[in-house]
Amino acid sequence: MSDRPDAQRMETIVSLCKRRGFIFQSSEIYGGLNGLWDYGPLGVELKRNLKNYWWRVIVHERDDVVGMDGSILMNRAAWKASGHEDTFTDPMVDCRSCKARLRSDQLIDKGKGKQCPVCGGKDLTEPRSFNLMFKTYVGATEDEASLTYLRPDTAQAIFVQFKSILEISRKKLPFGIAQIGKAFRNEINPRNFTFRSREFEQMELEYFCRPEQGMKLLEYWKEERLRFYEKIGIPRDKLHVKTVSDEERAFYSKGTYDIEYDFPFGRQELEGVAYRTDYDLRQHQAASGKSLEYFDEDTKQKFIPHVVEPSAGVDRTVLALICEAYAEDEAPDEKGKMETRIVLRFHPRIAPIKCAVFPLLKNKDPLVAKAKEIVDLLRPHMFVFYDESGAIGRRYRRQDEIGTPFGITVDFETLGEKDAKLRDTVTLRERDSMKQERVGIKDLASILISRIA
Amino acid sequence: MSDRPDAQRMETIVSLCKRRGFIFQSSEIYGGLNGLWDYGPLGVELKRNLKNYWWRVIVHERDDVVGMDGSILMNRAAWKASGHEDTFTDPMVDCRSCKARLRSDQLIDKGKGKQCPVCGGKDLTEPRSFNLMFKTYVGATEDEASLTYLRPDTAQAIFVQFKSILEISRKKLPFGIAQIGKAFRNEINPRNFTFRSREFEQMELEYFCRPEQGMKLLEYWKEERLRFYEKIGIPRDKLHVKTVSDEERAFYSKGTYDIEYDFPFGRQELEGVAYRTDYDLRQHQAASGKSLEYFDEDTKQKFIPHVVEPSAGVDRTVLALICEAYAEDEAPDEKGKMETRIVLRFHPRIAPIKCAVFPLLKNKDPLVAKAKEIVDLLRPHMFVFYDESGAIGRRYRRQDEIGTPFGITVDFETLGEKDAKLRDTVTLRERDSMKQERVGIKDLASILISRIA
Repeated sequence: MSDRPDAQRMETIVSLCKRRGFIFQSSEIYGGLNGLWDYGPLGVELKRNLKNYWWRVIVHERDDVVGMDGSILMNRAAWKASGHEDTFTDPMVDCRSCKARLRSDQLIDKGKGKQCPVCGGKDLTEPRSFNLMFKTYVGATEDEASLTYLRPDTAQAIFVQFKSILEISRKKLPFGIAQIGKAFRNEINPRNFTFRSREFEQMELEYFCRPEQGMKLLEYWKEERLRFYEKIGIPRDKLHVKTVSDEERAFYSKGTYDIEYDFPFGRQELEGVAYRTDYDLRQHQAASGKSLEYFDEDTKQKFIPHVVEPSAGVDRTVLALICEAYAEDEAPDEKGKMETRIVLRFHPRIAPIKCAVFPLLKNKDPLVAKAKEIVDLLRPHMFVFYDESGAIGRRYRRQDEIGTPFGITVDFETLGEKDAKLRDTVTLRERDSMKQERVGIKDLASILISRIA
Repeated sequence: MSDRPDAQRMETIVSLCKRRGFIFQSSEIYGGLNGLWDYGPLGVELKRNLKNYWWRVIVHERDDVVGMDGSILMNRAAWKASGHEDTFTDPMVDCRSCKARLRSDQLIDKGKGKQCPVCGGKDLTEPRSFNLMFKTYVGATEDEASLTYLRPDTAQAIFVQFKSILEISRKKLPFGIAQIGKAFRNEINPRNFTFRSREFEQMELEYFCRPEQGMKLLEYWKEERLRFYEKIGIPRDKLHVKTVSDEERAFYSKGTYDIEYDFPFGRQELEGVAYRTDYDLRQHQAASGKSLEYFDEDTKQKFIPHVVEPSAGVDRTVLALICEAYAEDEAPDEKGKMETRIVLRFHPRIAPIKCAVFPLLKNKDPLVAKAKEIVDLLRPHMFVFYDESGAIGRRYRRQDEIGTPFGITVDFETLGEKDAKLRDTVTLRERDSMKQERVGIKDLASILISRIA
């Protein structure tokens, strides 16, 4: 697949997201709010599965990483020290004709000067810096002393607690602190559905090391993160590693990779892996007057650790998962006639619902009772959906469209009415191949657990 | 236990929370920010376990509830309609002597007029309404049109999406929408550690029903929620159900229960279970002009559903879990002498770390290798901690203090050096009883999985 934008495919995906309850516009009944989104019943499950898997891989399966969860509102001094208060800006221009607010670095100059993309006018103001942090006041007065910001990233909360966590966790370098949480940026032009929004979630790891380990760990984490995306179902050939050039890189970084994905709206960043040197800790040490040094018991050296940061966006990864999963193929309808099938081919690991259970008919009590038994059997292990209404083919189709990898049907053979040997067996259908196998109820849990692990 | 405040116990708990990395002050190196807290490596695990268990019980194990995850920033119109913009206020007074800002309803009048609790002065201003919502501006201008608030509860996000979710989820009444997320209140006096903070997480369920079901479902959910707290290790006799009186209840509520817990600082609310009638949906329908009615296919009636809301605080429940778990008892030290042991008796279900694995000695490679094998064996199923440093008794003590329910020790018997029959067995120690049993490595996973389920 190329990185050429495919507007129609994107429209289809946005429409499916709304129709099946993945993503809604925030406050939609009030006309929404630009750049803000809500996750519906299926979106929230997909997002939880992604975050939980990241946490498992980054925190639980490693001895060298611990987690934390910091507050969104922090002392303003942290944002002064980090440089955000002075420099976390985009260049903004106003169109004097239609009053649109625009990012000047995104305006296209067709040789005759820059043009407003809304009204076509050319009467634009000079660009000026617009700080992307949302302001608020903590306390009962609205003055400079109580001003602070909604955090624009989760990383600074980690840097600010580095010393406390180092002390209580008894870790030695290299070790990391991981966090998942919301961040906010007052984007001038939110765009591309949930890709660039004003409120989003980050999954960030700050991996602290000795200065001489930095460049090597940058490579290590780039590879680890690529493997992560493959494990959640984004194939390696849809991912692209961009080496961020000296000019584009933050001045303190000695090396940065962007991991990009071919979205229908173009190739865009999913995650940045940046070697940030000791910049952040050094800034906070200077501003706070508190030592953020590490004491090496072996070498008796004291120094400020360097850090490699893999920083992933939850919302854009969810969007990539949906875009990657979306497919149309052919499947037979009730009468055997082939028709177009919409299917989300999620990896079972991140699929919102793992398994749907269907009694063949809803007005046959023994079928319904058996199906509900199976639901109870599987529920301690996975998210299961019970559906009894409509023709069985339609029920399959509804689950295909939301990416449920397995469907279990309880039929008359399950009840042993046709063949005693088939008593307490069910059909287990796989979403992508649509193949059905006959499986004993007692084996269902272990089969499914191994397939969704 | 009485509801008499126990300041010393609370101090001990706060100090343990910091020392072992459960909870830190936000932005501590910058002097903190009043009413804001960060969760450290153990706190974040405890909080995740609580939230995941709530989600499992409320969403995954029920056919009648779906989840959602709405944005923190919403269209201001929602907060006008809900009544928050006009009435979500506390009465505030200033002390003219020391400039303290105080909640006038919390001042104690000792018969000689109200007094400032900070300086003792009596020169107080008249009370005035202070709105507890944090303000911010979405977009490039700071004017009325771009003003909005950080949400003060998660409930309104649910009401505003009620119709969208009803349509896509094909649910019939009664059914619920659940959400876990952050909310913000600019408290005049944050207090009692994380109990009353300015940023907190809520676990809210809005359970929609027919009007005639409301009072019965209020009772049902009160009982369900009491059972929940028991299942996470808060015994029934430490919980108190307060029937909120007509005077204290919101005017639109036909019945509200507070579920309270005996904190060391007094009896305080963990959760409110409120029958809110159709107030919220009616307000949003009127303000948005969009129908939020339900159409009953059986009776052909159209009506605005009523709602019962169990609304729990994540942070205060975490605090209750820590307070409830904290205990001091006696245990033998290395030489058999009895000493005071600090232990957090968390229910295994919510304990941050489920199991610690120790090689008896860290300088014996076969012990270390076997211990690491066990770590790899258990990691797919639970959060496991590996610790090789210090005397084994000290390692037990460290885990007791953070509430790890199980400890596994790999010793020379595990290697089969003393008795071939004991090869590949380990000691499994239970935290509270400190009893040790000899268990085969191959049985460890299933034994532990059943005990932490």
